[in-house]
Amino acid sequence: MSLLIKHLENILGIDIEDEALFKRAFMHKSYVNEQKHHLLESNERLEFLGDAVLEIIVSDYLYNFYPEEPEGSLSRTRAQLVREPSLALLARKNDFHEYIQLGKGESASGGNNRDSILADCFEAFLGATYLEQGIDVVTNFLNKQLLLNHQDILKQVNLDYKTLFQEKAQTHGTVLIEYRLISKKGPDHNQIFEMGLFVDDKLISRGKGNSKKQAEIQAAKIAYQHLIGEVS
Amino acid sequence: MSLLIKHLENILGIDIEDEALFKRAFMHKSYVNEQKHHLLESNERLEFLGDAVLEIIVSDYLYNFYPEEPEGSLSRTRAQLVREPSLALLARKNDFHEYIQLGKGESASGGNNRDSILADCFEAFLGATYLEQGIDVVTNFLNKQLLLNHQDILKQVNLDYKTLFQEKAQTHGTVLIEYRLISKKGPDHNQIFEMGLFVDDKLISRGKGNSKKQAEIQAAKIAYQHLIGEVS
Repeated sequence: MSLLIKHLENILGIDIEDEALFKRAFMHKSYVNEQKHHLLESNERLEFLGDAVLEIIVSDYLYNFYPEEPEGSLSRTRAQLVREPSLALLARKNDFHEYIQLGKGESASGGNNRDSILADCFEAFLGATYLEQGIDVVTNFLNKQLLLNHQDILKQVNLDYKTLFQEKAQTHGTVLIEYRLISKKGPDHNQIFEMGLFVDDKLISRGKGNSKKQAEIQAAKIAYQHLIGEVS
Repeated sequence: MSLLIKHLENILGIDIEDEALFKRAFMHKSYVNEQKHHLLESNERLEFLGDAVLEIIVSDYLYNFYPEEPEGSLSRTRAQLVREPSLALLARKNDFHEYIQLGKGESASGGNNRDSILADCFEAFLGATYLEQGIDVVTNFLNKQLLLNHQDILKQVNLDYKTLFQEKAQTHGTVLIEYRLISKKGPDHNQIFEMGLFVDDKLISRGKGNSKKQAEIQAAKIAYQHLIGEVS
């Protein structure tokens, strides 16, 4: 039995029957495309399925957990839980970055630490688990890993706007991201820092706070929300 | 037992326990907002849930039905099956328009025949069925109504571009839609008609065909795809 299968059996607390199915969940298309024979399938079809499995399990949970919340609020929470940064967080927590199979180019450029690749792999893993074990095993797994502590996870993901912005800004290639002090005002015991977020030397956004770090997070949050279209 | 509940029991082939739950699936927010007491809930939360139930059942089916299709193709087919016109078609087929409860304004403007309202009601009905009866009952229902004949339904929905365009064009209010003959060419046994689609007297698109109807469908298809951004 491969290390990957053993690892997944530990995570899920089950015996895996179809090893090839679970291995496929960790095969990025860049890896499959490099193989000389064309017998392997990438994880994309499993991701298609896993995406929908994740959606119903999260929806069911939120529907019952927030009996008084209107639909709009449920939809926003669901969107935050199933978006890339949250899924990438779970993939990293389960060491998926150590098992993803990538093509040479993708691997050399650090693809196994890219949010999009990690999130897709996580969804494909859910798809494989659903196919072999059924929805209850996936539900148990997601309850433990995502849903019972979903408020903490949302906090964790939302606080980390500097990483979020960096990931998103680098989608199409490397850019230089810097935070520079714009101003420092007020008495020593109550200073207000204003930090600027610069991308390739261009000022993108500004943030204020009682520390440089707080001001940087604020600037990153504004820039990130703008980038993903949450605020226009 | 109300007519609605009897009707739904027939459709599903089951006994309904929680009548209030299924009735809620047919309560549009415009109806709930008009009630003096605020005890009723609209169908929006059930729609949130039903949307995800529909997604996993359709995804599971397509994944297995098209074992050789790549993810992109599966995603396109899924999107066509779960979009408004397909769901509105199913809602009409099951006479949901006769049972939807709307506010006075919405009702007077023909809301019970609007695709968006019908599709939302259909999803809410799936959500209620899932909550009370579990996913297998919803799967059986969707197999019979949508999935086993999904190729026919796609054809039916895609052919009906005149209705699709009309629905979409009237989203924000009534507009005058007319098809006018632009030209007629060729010998009697092989005439080519060119029809223009006019919205409030403005030419929006043109279509050609061997009959006026065919040319109209072509013009409507072009205008519709442009409207929903499928073709820019």
